[in-house]
Amino acid sequence: MGTADIPDIVVSRLPIYLRALTRMSQEGVKTTSSHELGRRLGISSAQIRKDLSHFGEFGKQGTGYQIEYLTGQLRRILKVDREWEVALVGAGDLGRAVAHYNGFRDRGFRITLVFDSNPAKVGTKLGEFEIYDVARLDDLIRTQGIAVAMVAVPAEAAQAVTDQLVAAGVRGILNYAPINLAVPHRVWVQHIDPVVHLQRMTYYL
Amino acid sequence: MGTADIPDIVVSRLPIYLRALTRMSQEGVKTTSSHELGRRLGISSAQIRKDLSHFGEFGKQGTGYQIEYLTGQLRRILKVDREWEVALVGAGDLGRAVAHYNGFRDRGFRITLVFDSNPAKVGTKLGEFEIYDVARLDDLIRTQGIAVAMVAVPAEAAQAVTDQLVAAGVRGILNYAPINLAVPHRVWVQHIDPVVHLQRMTYYL
Repeated sequence: MGTADIPDIVVSRLPIYLRALTRMSQEGVKTTSSHELGRRLGISSAQIRKDLSHFGEFGKQGTGYQIEYLTGQLRRILKVDREWEVALVGAGDLGRAVAHYNGFRDRGFRITLVFDSNPAKVGTKLGEFEIYDVARLDDLIRTQGIAVAMVAVPAEAAQAVTDQLVAAGVRGILNYAPINLAVPHRVWVQHIDPVVHLQRMTYYL
Repeated sequence: MGTADIPDIVVSRLPIYLRALTRMSQEGVKTTSSHELGRRLGISSAQIRKDLSHFGEFGKQGTGYQIEYLTGQLRRILKVDREWEVALVGAGDLGRAVAHYNGFRDRGFRITLVFDSNPAKVGTKLGEFEIYDVARLDDLIRTQGIAVAMVAVPAEAAQAVTDQLVAAGVRGILNYAPINLAVPHRVWVQHIDPVVHLQRMTYYL
């Protein structure tokens, strides 16, 4: 299973498959086919079979996929069969919404550290989390061995925060700031910018 | 400029180029090259030149791109040289963060309607917006001719809300609910699910 050989575009679809299969499972469905999954996702069944074939044989001709088994395999492949501790930097409106979002936990992630640079916020609580001064970021992330972080600070501050996170050993960053972040090759960044998605749609309208 | 011929993957990069160029412009930069832009974005200069060549000749060999001109052209191509009125459905934590986000306005979008189904929220204000009952969604969206909406409701409610939006004439939907939405072919959907992005990174960690 040489992961280096698998195109990132294939990897990017696995979480979508996992999400849909988990939902089907919650609906009480036990088995599915690439056709049914494809219909739900608007992806061709051939594409789904081809994507999954990179990782092994998960279904049987005629009987399809056992959802519980395939879900377990996808969790293992995506390494969310464990729980990742996540640091959140930025406790403004967006950071608050991220911290309150209850969809992380049962999908492999748990926020365990929250940072902000505003002295009025440091020491207060954001839900169940104490807000720490970003000055303690390096120390706390290093001590707790945290590998994944979310950046929810203004665009002007995002690169500096990212540099701190990388220096502290973080290897995966989910960036909510509307700016492209520069990171070393060993670090992965994903961007969430609603306007980028909106503009991609208005092109077609 | 037959837009139907241009791959969606190319279209998906245009908002990224626009965002980077706008930022350079804010930094006082007047001209740039595909090399400099590519370096900022981690995209090859050849890719940028090829992407832009679908839409015309925007730079000159040797002198590069006039940022103000290219920015204007990208805004026109993405149809954000106007302001789109946007409806937001869901005034929970996420909806609140979306409504308070100040990054929409100068990039082509303005929230003008907010809906929620919770009687305790209907009639109250979310920032400058009055929260309307979703029962009035069809009427208000139709009357105001709104074409773009954001869905920030729980997964269980997202498909029903989407069906209402489509029936009211909405043609572009930004979905924050962690579920794949079924829509007719004439409607565009983009999904924002932070866990999908996180799982795409943990695969590599």
